[in-house]
Amino acid sequence: MTLDQTADAAAQHDDTPFAEFEPDEQLRRMRHSAAHVLAEAVLEMFPEAKYAIGPPIDNGFYYDFDLPRPLTPEDLTILDKRMRKTAKRNVPIEGEWIPKAQAREIFANQPYKLEMIDEIEDDTVGHFTHAKFEDLCRGGHTERTGQIGAFKLSHSAGAYWRGDENRPMLQRVYGLLFPTRGELDAYIETREEAARSDHRRLGRELDLYSTHEEYGPGLVYWHPKGGRTRVEIEDAWRKEHFAAGYEIVFTPHVGRAELWETSGHLDFYADGMYSPMEIDGHAYYMKPMNCPFHVQIYSNTRRSYRELPMRLAELGTVYRYERSGVLHGMMRVRGFTQDDAHIICTPEQVEDEIVTVVEFVLHLLRIFGFDEFEASLSTRPEKSVGEPAQWQMAEDSLRRAMDRANLTYEIDEGGGAFYGPKIDIHLKDKIGRRWQCSTIQFDFNLPERFDMTYIGEDGAEHRPYMVHRALLGSIERFFAILLEHYGGALPLWLSPTQAMVIPIADRHIDFAHHVQSELRTHGFRIDVDTSGERMGNMIRRAQLQKTPYMLVIGDREVEAQQVSVRDRSGKDLGGMPLSQLIDRMVNERDIRS
Amino acid sequence: MTLDQTADAAAQHDDTPFAEFEPDEQLRRMRHSAAHVLAEAVLEMFPEAKYAIGPPIDNGFYYDFDLPRPLTPEDLTILDKRMRKTAKRNVPIEGEWIPKAQAREIFANQPYKLEMIDEIEDDTVGHFTHAKFEDLCRGGHTERTGQIGAFKLSHSAGAYWRGDENRPMLQRVYGLLFPTRGELDAYIETREEAARSDHRRLGRELDLYSTHEEYGPGLVYWHPKGGRTRVEIEDAWRKEHFAAGYEIVFTPHVGRAELWETSGHLDFYADGMYSPMEIDGHAYYMKPMNCPFHVQIYSNTRRSYRELPMRLAELGTVYRYERSGVLHGMMRVRGFTQDDAHIICTPEQVEDEIVTVVEFVLHLLRIFGFDEFEASLSTRPEKSVGEPAQWQMAEDSLRRAMDRANLTYEIDEGGGAFYGPKIDIHLKDKIGRRWQCSTIQFDFNLPERFDMTYIGEDGAEHRPYMVHRALLGSIERFFAILLEHYGGALPLWLSPTQAMVIPIADRHIDFAHHVQSELRTHGFRIDVDTSGERMGNMIRRAQLQKTPYMLVIGDREVEAQQVSVRDRSGKDLGGMPLSQLIDRMVNERDIRS
Repeated sequence: MTLDQTADAAAQHDDTPFAEFEPDEQLRRMRHSAAHVLAEAVLEMFPEAKYAIGPPIDNGFYYDFDLPRPLTPEDLTILDKRMRKTAKRNVPIEGEWIPKAQAREIFANQPYKLEMIDEIEDDTVGHFTHAKFEDLCRGGHTERTGQIGAFKLSHSAGAYWRGDENRPMLQRVYGLLFPTRGELDAYIETREEAARSDHRRLGRELDLYSTHEEYGPGLVYWHPKGGRTRVEIEDAWRKEHFAAGYEIVFTPHVGRAELWETSGHLDFYADGMYSPMEIDGHAYYMKPMNCPFHVQIYSNTRRSYRELPMRLAELGTVYRYERSGVLHGMMRVRGFTQDDAHIICTPEQVEDEIVTVVEFVLHLLRIFGFDEFEASLSTRPEKSVGEPAQWQMAEDSLRRAMDRANLTYEIDEGGGAFYGPKIDIHLKDKIGRRWQCSTIQFDFNLPERFDMTYIGEDGAEHRPYMVHRALLGSIERFFAILLEHYGGALPLWLSPTQAMVIPIADRHIDFAHHVQSELRTHGFRIDVDTSGERMGNMIRRAQLQKTPYMLVIGDREVEAQQVSVRDRSGKDLGGMPLSQLIDRMVNERDIRS
Repeated sequence: MTLDQTADAAAQHDDTPFAEFEPDEQLRRMRHSAAHVLAEAVLEMFPEAKYAIGPPIDNGFYYDFDLPRPLTPEDLTILDKRMRKTAKRNVPIEGEWIPKAQAREIFANQPYKLEMIDEIEDDTVGHFTHAKFEDLCRGGHTERTGQIGAFKLSHSAGAYWRGDENRPMLQRVYGLLFPTRGELDAYIETREEAARSDHRRLGRELDLYSTHEEYGPGLVYWHPKGGRTRVEIEDAWRKEHFAAGYEIVFTPHVGRAELWETSGHLDFYADGMYSPMEIDGHAYYMKPMNCPFHVQIYSNTRRSYRELPMRLAELGTVYRYERSGVLHGMMRVRGFTQDDAHIICTPEQVEDEIVTVVEFVLHLLRIFGFDEFEASLSTRPEKSVGEPAQWQMAEDSLRRAMDRANLTYEIDEGGGAFYGPKIDIHLKDKIGRRWQCSTIQFDFNLPERFDMTYIGEDGAEHRPYMVHRALLGSIERFFAILLEHYGGALPLWLSPTQAMVIPIADRHIDFAHHVQSELRTHGFRIDVDTSGERMGNMIRRAQLQKTPYMLVIGDREVEAQQVSVRDRSGKDLGGMPLSQLIDRMVNERDIRS
């Protein structure tokens, strides 16, 4: 493939009127035409420019150029204006199929076009024009340049020709494009919001965590401030889990090959596992999952139906191999802490258990401030273990549980794992993005493989049901989602520093420490800014750190034994006695989000 | 060496009167002579017996025999009696050195003795006798059989001749021996107490944890009940550490070889590390220590003296290779969670920091019910890094810190690690055993190796001090010590189940669950015994489980809306309304031990 690949499928030789295409295809054509309009503008600006390819992409289009000098932001503004003129002129875009020889003449000064012509196997190639602009192209355009919608050139960046670092580095100019100005503006705003709240940026700016490529990419080091929030998340998680009848266990991070052979991980999941270590002549693997360990705890002794349901939960840190190219901040890593649990129960108990888990996950996610959810149910695939009747029952109980929780869901027919059906629950964040965090997954495989049993009321051995579930997913990823959801301004109970005490001068430092220790006795995380800088600087810094409260102390406050309170939005809440501040903060912390 | 090795050093050819030996040597001789007296008794009982060797050991003596049948406990009683007779007869024990040929005649029927005679390089061998008993022996005895003190045969067990599994299996008879009856009885009582409170036994009986040899020895699986206590320990630890100005961090369990090369672990500690894994062509190692990761967090950004002292703490699970032979329950394992912290500070701050740590460790250990401590200070060895003046200052500050905390300590001159001096703090448990848990250790090595710096008040770069410290040592080992200290009857706040509700009949179950949920709202861990068994059984089981409170519910209790309370010692505390019980339990929980 040598030409605009994305545009390719729908494009060649068609005569359908633009207005009759599906909206998606219309948008693709608008973006593709805008790329041509961009190339035209660049060639006007740099007549010596060599142009390469310009496809539509997800949010707009780009075009690659070989230019005599790097483009500046001012250049983009000029190009943008020229494009607008072309759109306004509303000239027709026309295409025809011409012999290669003719194309070689037309593009005689364009080495990238010539290279593509050589690689095309047909005898003819597409030749598309508008006004005086000519391009080598398979088509897929609007009818006229006035139909290209609302666009904005966003930036330019280097890109190797054909992505090959041995070929020339070109300049790729990106444009955003949507059907209407309203949609374009909304997209730009969301994107800016997302950039501001990118957890990698916030992680750095708020000093929450780091990764160290040289000592292993994808391995997260939680800094003191990230650690404070993580401890809060884990404490809340443990408290809620104890209250919901879970037991908390701790299991090793490594196990001998025999464990992973029995579990089937070495057969089906080896690519996701770290390579083995050797100890006393045996192979050991770091755990990619906690399940086989929980099974050992269950099977450590003979179990009676009276002990079921057994709900074993663990904040279990697992290690999985991911290609370094897909690693992404805390979202996608090579070591992460699952908030894992396994529910082992009788067939009679399983439906109630599922209902309870679905309610529990929504309860837990609401505590962290999420309140919009969607779900999907993945059902039996063609190849599967377990009886059809078990699958039916499992799928039904997942369905009923979602109905009872008023959860909307779509069905992914045949999309379940071979060992059981599952529900995934997605949450929506403040800027409308969906994140899949929670999974509730039946497992008909491990109980067989590990021969798990319980003694029923009838005195005979039975096979229990086993359900895996992770509610937050992983602590690392959930923390990243929280950061992006709140743009770093975490609710009081999760904020690393809940208030920064700001003494205006050195003589106020004693009272500042008194305020700190008073608040600390109520369990708050309070820092004092002893930098001695100007008040404005100290306040600005605390605001940039998204600290919920700034407590300013000067002569008047010492005199009155109170603090002047500002919140992180900059709002001045006035002076208040400590007791009033404490009431306010305790109340805000307790209602959480 | 072929004869009794322990006795060997002090024994040969001496004519010193028994009474003039040091007490230790006297005791060794008493134990050695008792072994002879035992062998005499065995030969009387089994004239066809072959006897091998019989040395004094730590708490008494043993002798190995090749006998026509296995010994029974009744045999030991008879042998014990015969030994007592010999002691009472108070016959002299005499030795002489005889030619090998003569010895071969005397021991013509004793193949083990003949084998030893062959291996002795001298021309003569020791020949010791009392009454009609003869033994091949290098001496080291009491003068008479009446001097052998207070003894008791304890048990017999199989032992290969020369510890070689290809040689015959002999029967080894063990005896305990101390100078006086009082000392013997005290020893036996302590030993029985220790056996009853062996954490491996309690771990099994109270269902606290397990290990699974087949999936990796020395790796601990914490069961639900162990997990409940561990969460309490860790919660208390975190709370105390936050209050003491520590920050809690989380770091990966693996790191690339480069990290361990820079830290020096691969040079000096490789034997204690698991073998490497390979990821993307790089070697990774599981962490045996947390230090290098904490250094990365410190060095992630330029640090100012204003940020010091920085106290980075982590409940960091580390993995170390130990020979499988030395593994011991939760005491000595291959994976454990250190309650680790690193204090990074300026030279001016270090002494106060040390003092604070010493006070903090005693405070923390007292929370868990320990109140007798001893310490040791290990000073500069011959080979060391760091300046002599630094060492001097570090040792002085350790010394002053112990003085200020009124801690008695001994000095291990030159016993420090090459990278810095340290204090070890030992606690004493209920039966008088000393356990080393806490270490406070200077490190002059890692700050150099990782080039750690801070910007001082003078604007220049300086090298900080770094102090490692673990207070509980490891959570696994500390939990084992707690179990043994309390014989499993943990204080209320640490008990996995704080009260067991015991409904006498099914009609009392509803109220039982009401009681459970009332107590749970106060944060208590409460179970209900729904086994439907007889009350006596249920009470007995809860007692065996060392449950602090049993809350019995029958008609009268339901009627009066109260519970009948028993404690785990079996004491009946009578009926009480729930509010009264809750006050009592909250109070007991809050004062902790």
